[in-house]
Amino acid sequence: MTNHEQMWNELGMDVELHKELLRSIDKTFNQTVGAQKNRPAGIDYFDHVLHESHGGRVAELIEARKNGKKFIGTFCIYVPDEIAMAADAIPVALCGGSQFSIPYGEKMFPRDICPLIKSTMGLALGKICPYGPIKDLGVGETTCDAKKKTWDVVNFHVMEVPQKKSKLDFDLWFKAIEEFKDKVEELTGKKVEARRLSETIAIMNQKRRALQKLNEMRKIDPPPISGLDALVVMQAALNDEPVRFTEYLNKLNHELEKRADEGFSPFPKGTKRIMISGCPSVMGNWKVHSLIEKSNASVVIDETCTGTRYFENLVDDQTRTIEQQLNALAERYMKINCSCFTPNNERLESIEKIINTYRVDGVVQYILQYCHGYNVEAMRVSQILKQANLPNLKIVTDYSEEDTGQLQTRIDAFLEQIE
Amino acid sequence: MTNHEQMWNELGMDVELHKELLRSIDKTFNQTVGAQKNRPAGIDYFDHVLHESHGGRVAELIEARKNGKKFIGTFCIYVPDEIAMAADAIPVALCGGSQFSIPYGEKMFPRDICPLIKSTMGLALGKICPYGPIKDLGVGETTCDAKKKTWDVVNFHVMEVPQKKSKLDFDLWFKAIEEFKDKVEELTGKKVEARRLSETIAIMNQKRRALQKLNEMRKIDPPPISGLDALVVMQAALNDEPVRFTEYLNKLNHELEKRADEGFSPFPKGTKRIMISGCPSVMGNWKVHSLIEKSNASVVIDETCTGTRYFENLVDDQTRTIEQQLNALAERYMKINCSCFTPNNERLESIEKIINTYRVDGVVQYILQYCHGYNVEAMRVSQILKQANLPNLKIVTDYSEEDTGQLQTRIDAFLEQIE
Repeated sequence: MTNHEQMWNELGMDVELHKELLRSIDKTFNQTVGAQKNRPAGIDYFDHVLHESHGGRVAELIEARKNGKKFIGTFCIYVPDEIAMAADAIPVALCGGSQFSIPYGEKMFPRDICPLIKSTMGLALGKICPYGPIKDLGVGETTCDAKKKTWDVVNFHVMEVPQKKSKLDFDLWFKAIEEFKDKVEELTGKKVEARRLSETIAIMNQKRRALQKLNEMRKIDPPPISGLDALVVMQAALNDEPVRFTEYLNKLNHELEKRADEGFSPFPKGTKRIMISGCPSVMGNWKVHSLIEKSNASVVIDETCTGTRYFENLVDDQTRTIEQQLNALAERYMKINCSCFTPNNERLESIEKIINTYRVDGVVQYILQYCHGYNVEAMRVSQILKQANLPNLKIVTDYSEEDTGQLQTRIDAFLEQIE
Repeated sequence: MTNHEQMWNELGMDVELHKELLRSIDKTFNQTVGAQKNRPAGIDYFDHVLHESHGGRVAELIEARKNGKKFIGTFCIYVPDEIAMAADAIPVALCGGSQFSIPYGEKMFPRDICPLIKSTMGLALGKICPYGPIKDLGVGETTCDAKKKTWDVVNFHVMEVPQKKSKLDFDLWFKAIEEFKDKVEELTGKKVEARRLSETIAIMNQKRRALQKLNEMRKIDPPPISGLDALVVMQAALNDEPVRFTEYLNKLNHELEKRADEGFSPFPKGTKRIMISGCPSVMGNWKVHSLIEKSNASVVIDETCTGTRYFENLVDDQTRTIEQQLNALAERYMKINCSCFTPNNERLESIEKIINTYRVDGVVQYILQYCHGYNVEAMRVSQILKQANLPNLKIVTDYSEEDTGQLQTRIDAFLEQIE
């Protein structure tokens, strides 16, 4: 038995089933991320983060908990990590991206809700999630119907993300942030002090700057990194300790700058430049990025929660009091253009900007099956893409591999449209 | 050409396709509502309302508009009719319950959103909705993802229904009500005066009292009215002029009292008593009620938006100023236990009460396909039903007739469980 196996055993997990899960994820990883050529050397660390997400990272959290830290599971980038960290808690995003756990989720949850929720719940219900047993608090939010109602069932703390953007909506969101602070303080027994909060704001801003820098380089033709590898970095961002993550990302960025100077890229110059827009692709899910890049196009930007929505906009760090800091956090997070807002014109404006700055040749709207928010909003996105005279392919899919042949055909046909 | 045909023509409708729609609805009506025996005489009026919903009622609205009134289309019982009426507007709920229009909705909207939205949008897109061309304002709300995003596409006024029930959430809802008042005043050019608002509050309270009275009688064993006919009354409630509606409902209630005294009912005493809980069944949709009652059980209460949620709780009429009145309206409407709330414990408490007061033998959780809110919340409802030791059948279905055989089998098996 390896050390990790012993740990999983002690966590009460189904160790044999968990091995199957890891084999399944490894297989998918090797067929997609691992099958790429000309990857930067610095991506190794992020591959490692993904591979250790059920091993080393969990051991680290267990150790931290022994030292008095609390571990908070989150499921949306609307949850402000800065606050949790300032109260000596460790927030980790626990969204599931693997098909393997979905049947376990479907034993309890409806089949016709999005794969992300079913995969996440399936990991817990199948006893193949090492995070569940050590989680001190689950924090949900109200960004979509299915998640919102799921939090009721599992009895999580729920942050109310408003649906419009008036002053009163902002006040509501500010209150949700205050309540989250209170909840975390209650959990850890530690007050969020202004000094510590300014440190965690700085940590997360540094992380965002590094991600922004990475994405700046994706503007280059040809980009020094594939869209799939940029996604691996993003997936690691949602799991890894942020200071260490940023350190390694800065190293990778440095390498990518050199590659860019040398014109070195996984793609030849002139490769078709694709934006992915819509739903997140969390760890375990490399499906659509991989299909696009296997068809010799390059994903140059992700307008998703595993993309721009995660790292754009810094938190104002020129604040001093807790009140000011919470306000700055509320402002930054409320700029995340989630489809939960009505109307969500800021998202459309953001897409229009990205199209130009990233010199996008075509847009794949990636919709997780049964995600009504992005699915219906796709109609408005399609309108602005039509106005911009930009080819646009809407893909509605789950985590299974059943439709990959069909998707590949559709993606190929779509790419042929691009001159 | 009949008068109505001329009217439909003048409205720019596809008159031939519309005839097909009416034939389709008539056929469904005759196979379900019309096929019942021992219906009360007073139900004739409500049948008439349904049959004239695309004819006489539309002519009435056209006439009213000629006389300076404005017509507002609504899609949720969270929209307070009282305010619209007080500003000389006529609100009518326009939710579609017919399978016929769904293919037209699916030409533009995703297939995997709920049939109610697709049916509604299909009526407009297929040019078979007489209300669309005369609508002065569409008012949507934020009670579910798919509707919320649909309002963006069709550019409706959107009322923000909050997702929790704190003081600040109430303030947000109060503001949505104020904004609705402003919007309606702007539309009609008429101020909502306290005196007129107290009148419309009284009108709607009278309507609710009449519906409450009707439902009181469904507590009797055997009930003097079928669940299907009670549904017809509810469907008419969403379309008809409220004063006239209440007048006819009071007459029907009087007849039902006599029937109850005489022990006259569509069902024999001891008929199994079923509660329907979950999603609404709007005009054109008699599917599940009909299947249950054809299997010799009786639907004795609807815990839905075409049931208790519509008529329970009166608006406090002891208010004097506009501010107080709007507050009373906000309070009453926010008691509607929509699954958009997290947590939605008030709904569970309400179900527990209904089970007892209506002496329910079993519960059919009726979920419109892809309605994540009620679908996921069904898990919590099932928990309390299990605790109450009450048989519980969850039906997820759309408006089509494809699954009726399968549903009939499931319903029969379910009813057999009830001793």
